[in-house]
Amino acid sequence: MRTYADCFPCFIRQTIIALRQLTDDEALQERIIKEVLPVIAAADMRKPPAYTTTFLHRMIREQLGQDPFKKTKHTFNSLALGLYPELRERVRGSAEPLWTAARLAIAGNVIDFGIFSSIDINGSVTRALEPRIAVDDYESFRAAAGEADSILYLLDNSGEIVFDRLLIEELQASGRKVKAVVKGSAVLNDATMEDAMQIGLPELCEVTDNGSDAIGTILEWTSPGFRAEFEKADLIVSKGQGNFETLSGTRKKTFFLFQSKCGVVSKDLGLEPGSMLLKKS
Amino acid sequence: MRTYADCFPCFIRQTIIALRQLTDDEALQERIIKEVLPVIAAADMRKPPAYTTTFLHRMIREQLGQDPFKKTKHTFNSLALGLYPELRERVRGSAEPLWTAARLAIAGNVIDFGIFSSIDINGSVTRALEPRIAVDDYESFRAAAGEADSILYLLDNSGEIVFDRLLIEELQASGRKVKAVVKGSAVLNDATMEDAMQIGLPELCEVTDNGSDAIGTILEWTSPGFRAEFEKADLIVSKGQGNFETLSGTRKKTFFLFQSKCGVVSKDLGLEPGSMLLKKS
Repeated sequence: MRTYADCFPCFIRQTIIALRQLTDDEALQERIIKEVLPVIAAADMRKPPAYTTTFLHRMIREQLGQDPFKKTKHTFNSLALGLYPELRERVRGSAEPLWTAARLAIAGNVIDFGIFSSIDINGSVTRALEPRIAVDDYESFRAAAGEADSILYLLDNSGEIVFDRLLIEELQASGRKVKAVVKGSAVLNDATMEDAMQIGLPELCEVTDNGSDAIGTILEWTSPGFRAEFEKADLIVSKGQGNFETLSGTRKKTFFLFQSKCGVVSKDLGLEPGSMLLKKS
Repeated sequence: MRTYADCFPCFIRQTIIALRQLTDDEALQERIIKEVLPVIAAADMRKPPAYTTTFLHRMIREQLGQDPFKKTKHTFNSLALGLYPELRERVRGSAEPLWTAARLAIAGNVIDFGIFSSIDINGSVTRALEPRIAVDDYESFRAAAGEADSILYLLDNSGEIVFDRLLIEELQASGRKVKAVVKGSAVLNDATMEDAMQIGLPELCEVTDNGSDAIGTILEWTSPGFRAEFEKADLIVSKGQGNFETLSGTRKKTFFLFQSKCGVVSKDLGLEPGSMLLKKS
């Protein structure tokens, strides 16, 4: 996916959201916003917006001297962990646990405090469990998951990873080997190894990092080790809009589970903002 | 009113709205957005956002080589003229024509295609004629208008000026001398002399221009002739958010008639976005 004119106001909006995680100092906010503007002016429109947001979040962290999302990530991991026992019961008690877990993984993608300033988790769960979602390649997903020996599961946001845990459990229950992938270092509210550890993911499956601080998965910026894993996996499960932006043209067998949060991505997909997708590559 | 961080995404959003009035050429849009970013980076946060939007609309007109709002302004003047006979009947047939005309003048302020991409004129008229609006200094307004020999009426948007005509007629009917003020040259969708002529305003009252292409009324940029008029007027009627932003600290006896359209102005006022105001200075 490429960058559109409508991404520009959103680049600044995301900058403001990030700054407000950490500081109410309006002079500091002004200084950093103004320093981010040349980064935005350098946007390559042929590339996904994730390139520019990666650059701008790098600059924000540098200027603040710390990761503005650290505390919020921890909070949302805890909140989601509180929901876990009930959600797990819902999965186990359902007619088709893989279906329910896949839908809940999509529901969890609403936890994105880089884009939203308020989050309705319960509403998202209710919507995700309705019979129809905007794009639903579940039957293909079930078949592909049934055939795959190794699945590489690209995680997205903190908090959301608790919902992913449910789906990873179901994939493993049917005999699949799942490797979960976090970001190499802090970026936005994306899960890193620290977040995976907070929710106990390494006790369930192998967790690796992609060696990158990019939004989504910008393959050329990931580590050689991750690229080798990516190449050899039978199936990729890709969570979130950032991974969709950056991997939507991939030749790998990939299923994208996400909510289309912004007007630009939704328009590109021909869908309403807020649509839920389980989409085959 | 000063500039807030949240104005920055909106500066770019307004730029995109302006460009789309005239061109679908995405390469041209990209070039101009990127040229506008340094203008935005130079924003003086102590001043109203109208300063920055003035600079950016100047740059947009220069880069496009023409006024992107010219055609849309003409269209909305025509549309509003189509509503005029019915609105005039509503004023004349009402229990208090001055009240009704003032409320309709506020309703007309919804016509702002610099901020909105779609406009609900009928909905705005209905809301404006409800007994309560967010800020209602009508009794003071009626008293002040009754005492004033000369009223300077600062117009805002094209199309909206047809609604202002109704209020000017009522002020004149009670013996007031009204002088209407348009912008000195094209800026955004603001009314210029050409627009005033399209709706027949010079046949009703004296119409003058403020010698400026600024959003709102930035006094130091207006002509000496206008400033003299401003100083000597008994009463100022100020239409629109831009005039409120730039004149809200004035010592002149002023009534601001407008809808608070953006989150920033609304927050500054402690009101919900979309609130309607007839506010004493």
